[in-house]
Amino acid sequence: MRISNTIIPTLRQTPAEAEIISHQLLLRAGLLRKSAAGIYSYLPLGYKVISKISQIVRDEMNKFGGQEVMLPIMQPAELWLETGRWHVYGDEMFRLKDRHQRDFCLGPTHEEIITDLVRGDVNSYKQLPLLLYQIQNKYRDERRPRFGLMRGREFIMKDLYSFDKDEEGLAASYEKMRQAYINVFQRCGLDFRAVEADSGAIGGSSTHEFMVMADSGEATIVYCQVCDYAANIEKAPCQPINSNEDHAEDKVLALVSTPDVHTIDQLVNFLQVPAFRTVKTLVYEVAYEGDNELIAVMVRGDRELNEVKLYNLLGCTSLELANPAIVKEKLGVEVGFIGPVGLKVKIYADHEIAQMSSMVVGGNKPDFHYINAIKDRDFSIHELADLRMAEGGEPCPKCGEPLSMAQGIEVGQIFKLGTKYSDALNCKFLDENGKEKPMIMGCYGIGVSRTMAAAIEQNYDEDGIKWPISIAPYQVIIIPVNVKDENTEKASLNIYQDLMKLGIEVIIDDRNERAGVKFKDADLIGYPIRVTIGPKTLANNNLEIKLRRTKEEFTVNIDEAIDWINTKINQELDLLQPVYPKD
Amino acid sequence: MRISNTIIPTLRQTPAEAEIISHQLLLRAGLLRKSAAGIYSYLPLGYKVISKISQIVRDEMNKFGGQEVMLPIMQPAELWLETGRWHVYGDEMFRLKDRHQRDFCLGPTHEEIITDLVRGDVNSYKQLPLLLYQIQNKYRDERRPRFGLMRGREFIMKDLYSFDKDEEGLAASYEKMRQAYINVFQRCGLDFRAVEADSGAIGGSSTHEFMVMADSGEATIVYCQVCDYAANIEKAPCQPINSNEDHAEDKVLALVSTPDVHTIDQLVNFLQVPAFRTVKTLVYEVAYEGDNELIAVMVRGDRELNEVKLYNLLGCTSLELANPAIVKEKLGVEVGFIGPVGLKVKIYADHEIAQMSSMVVGGNKPDFHYINAIKDRDFSIHELADLRMAEGGEPCPKCGEPLSMAQGIEVGQIFKLGTKYSDALNCKFLDENGKEKPMIMGCYGIGVSRTMAAAIEQNYDEDGIKWPISIAPYQVIIIPVNVKDENTEKASLNIYQDLMKLGIEVIIDDRNERAGVKFKDADLIGYPIRVTIGPKTLANNNLEIKLRRTKEEFTVNIDEAIDWINTKINQELDLLQPVYPKD
Repeated sequence: MRISNTIIPTLRQTPAEAEIISHQLLLRAGLLRKSAAGIYSYLPLGYKVISKISQIVRDEMNKFGGQEVMLPIMQPAELWLETGRWHVYGDEMFRLKDRHQRDFCLGPTHEEIITDLVRGDVNSYKQLPLLLYQIQNKYRDERRPRFGLMRGREFIMKDLYSFDKDEEGLAASYEKMRQAYINVFQRCGLDFRAVEADSGAIGGSSTHEFMVMADSGEATIVYCQVCDYAANIEKAPCQPINSNEDHAEDKVLALVSTPDVHTIDQLVNFLQVPAFRTVKTLVYEVAYEGDNELIAVMVRGDRELNEVKLYNLLGCTSLELANPAIVKEKLGVEVGFIGPVGLKVKIYADHEIAQMSSMVVGGNKPDFHYINAIKDRDFSIHELADLRMAEGGEPCPKCGEPLSMAQGIEVGQIFKLGTKYSDALNCKFLDENGKEKPMIMGCYGIGVSRTMAAAIEQNYDEDGIKWPISIAPYQVIIIPVNVKDENTEKASLNIYQDLMKLGIEVIIDDRNERAGVKFKDADLIGYPIRVTIGPKTLANNNLEIKLRRTKEEFTVNIDEAIDWINTKINQELDLLQPVYPKD
Repeated sequence: MRISNTIIPTLRQTPAEAEIISHQLLLRAGLLRKSAAGIYSYLPLGYKVISKISQIVRDEMNKFGGQEVMLPIMQPAELWLETGRWHVYGDEMFRLKDRHQRDFCLGPTHEEIITDLVRGDVNSYKQLPLLLYQIQNKYRDERRPRFGLMRGREFIMKDLYSFDKDEEGLAASYEKMRQAYINVFQRCGLDFRAVEADSGAIGGSSTHEFMVMADSGEATIVYCQVCDYAANIEKAPCQPINSNEDHAEDKVLALVSTPDVHTIDQLVNFLQVPAFRTVKTLVYEVAYEGDNELIAVMVRGDRELNEVKLYNLLGCTSLELANPAIVKEKLGVEVGFIGPVGLKVKIYADHEIAQMSSMVVGGNKPDFHYINAIKDRDFSIHELADLRMAEGGEPCPKCGEPLSMAQGIEVGQIFKLGTKYSDALNCKFLDENGKEKPMIMGCYGIGVSRTMAAAIEQNYDEDGIKWPISIAPYQVIIIPVNVKDENTEKASLNIYQDLMKLGIEVIIDDRNERAGVKFKDADLIGYPIRVTIGPKTLANNNLEIKLRRTKEEFTVNIDEAIDWINTKINQELDLLQPVYPKD
C-alpha cells in the first residue's frame, strides 16, 4: 500500500473527547472517527486491524468445529417476548417499528434468533453437537457511552452458540471454546488471563472471562503466580483470616460517643483500635419476585463487601443500598451509625465476623459506637457466609500461596447456559431412545472491536501504539527519507515490491514530507518494523531498520534486508503460535 | 468439512412462502432461513457463498485502488437533515430513537456518512483521488418485501464512494469501477451485461447497471449482438422508424363510431387499419416544484410510452397517469377515448408521430374515433421527442444492426454523482492553486446477497442449483455410498484429506444415509464436482465423478483422481479469469 493512495489522518493533538489512551491513540493514529456517541467509522488502517483480529478469531472457531453463519441484526420482538427478555432488557435495547408498526430490536445478543433457527431445523441427537458463530455488529444503548471502543453502542462481536445433547457434551464444547479463546488472545499477542467469573444475570452454571491485563482495566482480578488460579475479584472465594485477637470474652458492651467520626479511618484514629477490630454494617433493600425487604450485612471495617456474593447468597432479583430515608423510617437509625445491636432486620455477616472475639460496631445513634460487642451475646447473625471482596496477599484457594492482584479489560466471556433458552423457546431433540429432551446450550463472546482497544491499552508508549505484529495494520513500513531523490525512491520501491512478493504486509510512505513527520507518524501508528532508506546509508548499500516495540536499531545491507525482515517477522509470529492442540 | 458436523437442513418440499426459484432453492438447499419479512439468517453453506462473493468483490476493489472501511449502520439524523434526505426517504427508511430521544436511521446507503468523514479529514488535492468502500448490511423498509434475497429489508451490499478533484478524475474512477465490476461478475461465473441506465432520482450525469441475464429478471434490456451496445430499456434511445405510408395528405378528418372498442387490438380489428397507423393519447398529471399541470402524450398504437424519458424531458418532480375523474372534469373527455383534436392541454408526442401522414386517434367522445387525423392540420404538438420504449429488432443506436431484447436482474450500479453531496455537506479541498473546490463524487454499489440469488436464477435445473465453481459453497463433495463399509470409508477419507491438502474446498457426506438421499441433496445444493466412492468401483480401484453443470460422468482411477479433480477445478477457474487489466 502506498500512503498517498489511502487515508491515514493522523493528529498531533489529543482530541478532547478522548478520556483513555486507546481512544486517544485510535483517533490520533487515524484509525477511527466518531459518527455519534458510541458509534464509530473505522478508517482503512483501523479496519485492517479489525479484519486481522476477526480472521484469527475465525480460524480458531473453525479449528474447534465452529460453523460461521450470519444472523439478522434487526430482530422481531416476538422471539424476545417468548423468552421474556423484551421487557427485561429495558433502555439498553434499541427498539424500532417497521412501516406496519411491528416491533423490532437491534440485536444486543443472539440467543433468541439462534435458538429459533436451531429449533426449526435440528431435531435429532445425530445432528448434535452444533457450534454456530458469527462476527457482526451488536447494539446496546449504553446510558453513558464512552472510552471509545471500550463501551460503544454499535460494536463488533464474535458470538458462538453451542448446542449439545447432554451436560458432558456441553462440558466438551465449553472446553473447546476455552482452548480456542486462549489461542485467539495468544495469537493476538496479548498478555491475558482466563479468570473464573460470576455468571450473574445470564444465569449459567459456569463461566470464564478473558482479561487483557492493563492498568487502565475496569475489572480487578486476583491470580496466583504459583498455580494457574485466576478469578474476577467478584468471584474469588475468601477464606476467613484469623485475626488472632487476644481479647477476653468478658468485656462489657459500651456505647461511646464518637463525634465527627464518619469513616473507618476516623474511627480507628479516634478509638485507637485496629481496623480489623471494627465492623461495617450496611442496610440493603432486596427485591425478590414480587417482594421486597430490608436486610443488614456486616463485614470487617478493613474489608469490602462483595455485592455479587451477597446477590448470589440471597437469590434475589435485585439489590441496592437502602435509601437513608427509608432506613430512618423503618429501622429508626441514621445511615452512618448502623450497628447490629438491637437492629430489627435479618443480619447477614461475612465469615470473618465469627472469628472476632469482640468488635466495634455502629451505635444506632448519631455520633455513637458500641465497643466490645460480642456475637451471640449482643446480637444475632441470621447467616454467615463468604461475603467479602478478595484482596492481594491472601492465600490462593487452590494452592495456598499468596494471591496477586491486577487490573484487566474483559475481552471475552464463555458461559454454560444450560436449558434456559432451549426451555423458553422449546428447542428440543430426540435422543438415542426416541425421547424428547431440551438441548443444552452454551454461549461464547469475544469483543472484537474492544480487543483492538485493549491491545492498545496494553501496548503503547509516549510516541504511540506498539502493535503486536499479528494484528498490526501493516507489518512493515518503508520510509524513503526523500522521495525526490531518484536513488532513494528506486531502492525503496524495490524493497517494497520484494517484500510484497513474499506476502509481507508492507506500506510505503511515499508522501513528499519531511523524514521527521514520517517517523512521527510511523511511531504513532505503531508499525512493528520500520525500514528507513536514504542517500547516506544507500551510499554504503545499507538501510536502517528500527523495531517499534524494543526500539532496537539495525543497519542492514540492502542485499540481505529482505531475508532479515522476513526472518524477523517469522520469529515474532512464531512466538505467538497457538497453545492448543497440545502435542 | 464433514456434513455430520454442520447444519444443512435440506427440504424435499418447496416452502409455500417462496414465489421465485432462487428463494425456493435457497430454502430447500438449506442455505437460508427467514427471521421476519425480508430479513434472513444465512446458514453455514449460505454464508460460505456470501463470503466467496464478498472476497471476489474485495479483491477487485483493492486491485483498482479501493480502501476498505467500516461505516456505522446506525446513523444520526443530523447528517440526513443536512442533505435533506431525512424527509425525502419517507417510509422506506427505518428510523429509531435512542434513550435520549435522538433520531437515528438504519443506513439505506452511506453517502452522508462517508462525505461527513471525508470533509473532516481530507482537505488537499494531494489526498485525492480516494476510493473508500465497505461490505455491510443495508436497510430498506420495502412496502412489500418478497422474492427472498431479491428484495429484502436487511441485505448485504458493497458500496464504494470515489472522491476526485475534477471531472477527469471522476471519469477515471468511474472507468476503474466499470472494469472492476466486469471482473467481479466474470469471476463469479455469471452471464451479465453492463447496460446504460437512467440516473433517475439519485441525479448523476452517467450511470451503468450490471444485469445478470435471467428470464425471471424484472428489468428489460436491449442489446446489440454485433457491437457492444446494451441499455436498460428505460434508457435506450429510439430512432423513429419510417412507417412508409402511402396515404395522401388530402384525406378528410372524420369522426367515426367505434362501439365496444377499448383497446388498440379492437380498434385495429374494427377499422381494419394497421396498428402503426393508430395513436394512443395519454393524459398525465405532472408535478413541478410547487406546481401541477395536466399534459397529454401521443405514441403510436403499437408502441409503449417510456415514462422515464417523459420524466426527464419534463424535468418534473413526479409524474402519474391522471385520475379519470380529473380528466373528465378538466378536459371534458372520458379516458379511453382521448385524442389530440381539440384537446385543451399541451401535447407532447413521440418522434414517430411526425412521420405519420395521417392517423387514427381518439374522438374525445365515448365510442368514437377520428380517422385521417393529420398533424398541424387537425392538431398541434407542443414538443416532439423520443418518448417511446425501445423494442427488439429495431436498429442499434451505435451500429444500426437489429437489437435483441432480454430480461435481467440488476446486481450492481455505478453512478457519477458530481457535487450533489459534497455541495450539500460542504466537502471541499484546496486545489494546486490554493483555491477551494467541492470534491467530485461517484458511488458504486453491488448487491452481494442479491448476486447470490441472481446466480441461482441463472444457474439451476429441475434437480437444484448449479453453482459456478468460483462461488459454490464447496467445490467438491465426496459421497461414500455406505459409510459402514470400512474400505469405502477409508478410501473416501483418503481422497478427502488429499484434496484438503491441496487447498481444495471439499465436503464429505459422512452421514449414515442411503446413497440416493445423498445424491439428491448434492444435486439440490449444487456442488460442481461430485465424487462417489463405493465397493463396486473400489474393486477396480476406481471412483466415479459427476459434473453438476454438464451432468457428465467419468470413471477415474483412484490413484489419478486427485490430479484429475485438481486439473478440472483449475480449468474451470481459468475460464473465469478477470478481464482487466488487459494485456
